[in-house]
Amino acid sequence: MAHPVSPLARPFPAIPPIAGVTPRVARAGYKDWGRCDLTFIELAEGTAVAGVFTRNICCSSEVELGRQNVAQGHARALVVNAGNSNAFTGYRGREAVEAIMAQVSAHLGCPQEQVFVSSTGVIGVPLPKDKAKAGIEAALLAEPCDWQAAAETIGTTDTFAKGAMAKAVVDGRTVTLGAIIKGSGMIAPDMATMLGYIFTDAAVEPGFLQQLLSAANQRTFSCITVDSDTSTSDTVLAFATGAAGNAPLSSFDSPGADAFAAALEDVCRQMAHLVVRDGEGAQKFIAVTVSGAVSDESARKIGLAIANSPLVKTAIAGEDANWGRVVMAVGKAGEPADRDRLSIGFGGTWAAREGQPLADYDEAPVAAHLKGQDISIEVDLGLGDGRATVWTCDLTHGYISINADYRS
Amino acid sequence: MAHPVSPLARPFPAIPPIAGVTPRVARAGYKDWGRCDLTFIELAEGTAVAGVFTRNICCSSEVELGRQNVAQGHARALVVNAGNSNAFTGYRGREAVEAIMAQVSAHLGCPQEQVFVSSTGVIGVPLPKDKAKAGIEAALLAEPCDWQAAAETIGTTDTFAKGAMAKAVVDGRTVTLGAIIKGSGMIAPDMATMLGYIFTDAAVEPGFLQQLLSAANQRTFSCITVDSDTSTSDTVLAFATGAAGNAPLSSFDSPGADAFAAALEDVCRQMAHLVVRDGEGAQKFIAVTVSGAVSDESARKIGLAIANSPLVKTAIAGEDANWGRVVMAVGKAGEPADRDRLSIGFGGTWAAREGQPLADYDEAPVAAHLKGQDISIEVDLGLGDGRATVWTCDLTHGYISINADYRS
Repeated sequence: MAHPVSPLARPFPAIPPIAGVTPRVARAGYKDWGRCDLTFIELAEGTAVAGVFTRNICCSSEVELGRQNVAQGHARALVVNAGNSNAFTGYRGREAVEAIMAQVSAHLGCPQEQVFVSSTGVIGVPLPKDKAKAGIEAALLAEPCDWQAAAETIGTTDTFAKGAMAKAVVDGRTVTLGAIIKGSGMIAPDMATMLGYIFTDAAVEPGFLQQLLSAANQRTFSCITVDSDTSTSDTVLAFATGAAGNAPLSSFDSPGADAFAAALEDVCRQMAHLVVRDGEGAQKFIAVTVSGAVSDESARKIGLAIANSPLVKTAIAGEDANWGRVVMAVGKAGEPADRDRLSIGFGGTWAAREGQPLADYDEAPVAAHLKGQDISIEVDLGLGDGRATVWTCDLTHGYISINADYRS
Repeated sequence: MAHPVSPLARPFPAIPPIAGVTPRVARAGYKDWGRCDLTFIELAEGTAVAGVFTRNICCSSEVELGRQNVAQGHARALVVNAGNSNAFTGYRGREAVEAIMAQVSAHLGCPQEQVFVSSTGVIGVPLPKDKAKAGIEAALLAEPCDWQAAAETIGTTDTFAKGAMAKAVVDGRTVTLGAIIKGSGMIAPDMATMLGYIFTDAAVEPGFLQQLLSAANQRTFSCITVDSDTSTSDTVLAFATGAAGNAPLSSFDSPGADAFAAALEDVCRQMAHLVVRDGEGAQKFIAVTVSGAVSDESARKIGLAIANSPLVKTAIAGEDANWGRVVMAVGKAGEPADRDRLSIGFGGTWAAREGQPLADYDEAPVAAHLKGQDISIEVDLGLGDGRATVWTCDLTHGYISINADYRS
């Protein structure tokens, strides 16, 4: 973690152990750094799995195999490599992933497709098989670790460890959801957009877990952006061990399904926000709320056009209530909008209403709001009931420094 | 012109007077600056006009009226206001444009729809009618000026005056094309993406002029991007006075039509490159050539995904041959691509071929190339014959400084 801690960082939450989940970390030495970089998480037999993956079509072998293997619904282990994404490495990259899957499945006596692998870091260098093998052997001998150690180990350019926790009462039992996530650049909402893992002791049928994760993803991870760039490795996996002993959730008709779905979405939203809070060079956390659109999806697309606009992001970095740039971004989104019905505000104060600057616009509260760390931009299109909130960070000198120096 | 001159600047070319075109400049005082900011260009009777305009749906009244008026095919005058874009100003903004059109048409005794108006600068402040009126009166009394003075006057945050020139032999006569353009931020290829004006003494039927301009636009202005942000005011207009006396060009069957079309596209490409060369904070001019795509349009879209990627642009700023980021950008473009057929090079040297890093990759020539000012990125998709080149600049601290400080 070479860069200074983000000013928007949040402390790591107290996540208790999750029954049926055993995290361990080790040093594989993928890069020349003095830290653990391999995370090995063992999962109890019968653990259900669901996943969402990057839509980048130049995705890594890890993503290809993960997408394929999630279909059978069960998982026994997760291996996360940090420092090497193994993307764009051809058959050698694929062989490295398959070797990890074979090694772990032999150790656990489980089908190979129940071993999930993620890698993140530099693109184009095949993951060294020997380092991975030795790293896994070391992890198998290591003591189990806490969630913070696991979160630190999956990180790369992250400046702080990120975790989330929620509880829900399901079928009379309290179930726990714990999650870790990494990611700070190459973040755009076209699926998972980072590596994130959710673990719960709840019993959930794989198909229903997938349904819930996909729905939560659409309102959380798919609503964040740091720099509009979509990684080749993005993955979010959810694992449900069933150790809590509740009657397995199989649909919204199952008792407690609503509570579990809410807790899952809560954890996803916390994780998504943390990724934005560690956006490269971020100084401000920005929520863009678009209302009055023709549909929720249209509102989301307009929100992302605003959140991805370099001119809007630099204006916020400069604490400038430049609503004209917001107008521009609305207009370029390719979604229905009417210039003369558009209203734009900052921190709850309208700067322009129905296509014109407000005659009695008082800039003082807006200026005060923009000096803070948590910024809100409100856009009302005045067309319909569609609504969405997306989250991003400002674009600063820090982003340039980090990315013009990062070595390929 | 507050910022230092771009290191990529080009000297203003020697553009001769164009018969039938009379430029004048004046000081309207739209901003508190000691320079001319109103350009008035009178055109001979019978001048044909064609135009391409921003697709931003929150466009200015100038764009709305210009798009409407270009349909009747003729022009007698062009007025360009600098410092105030008059966008998002409701009915008051529209009134200001109509007042200018009325004033000029009364003076010239021409239909109002033959007066074209452009404005650029801050969004959201209605163009002050009294200043425009006085500015036009001053311009009418001014001596005609040269093209460099006109190019300087239409500029806003531009750091150097931009012009282009070409000649063609049409129907046995040498015709001249002279052009001026402004633009340095809020540049993305969704039509014209800046204010540009082409003047020629050739005789061209309006419909054919429009056909040629639209085609040239697709291969030039629609192939550049600075920051992916699409202005609400972008406009390119072409004016053909006919003073050269050639038999009017009406289709590609007209003698000299091909030569004229080539000269027009040449001028458009020169102008497009100049806009990129004045991209905010630009230190390097980048040409991205995509070949082997399923179509030219697919190649263009992939080229723009690369050219708009903040991670690619910062890598070039850092002189880092980070082809992994190029892979990422290809994969997020949403166009057909096959990771295992993809080849990527810099300055004519392949770094990766068919989905894998080159075993004998020699980074020395690439490193030397990246230290220069003119950078090329080559991408071969290995799928078909589609091909396109797009142009952009790097993303630097200068962009952040300019845009985090620019006041709304």
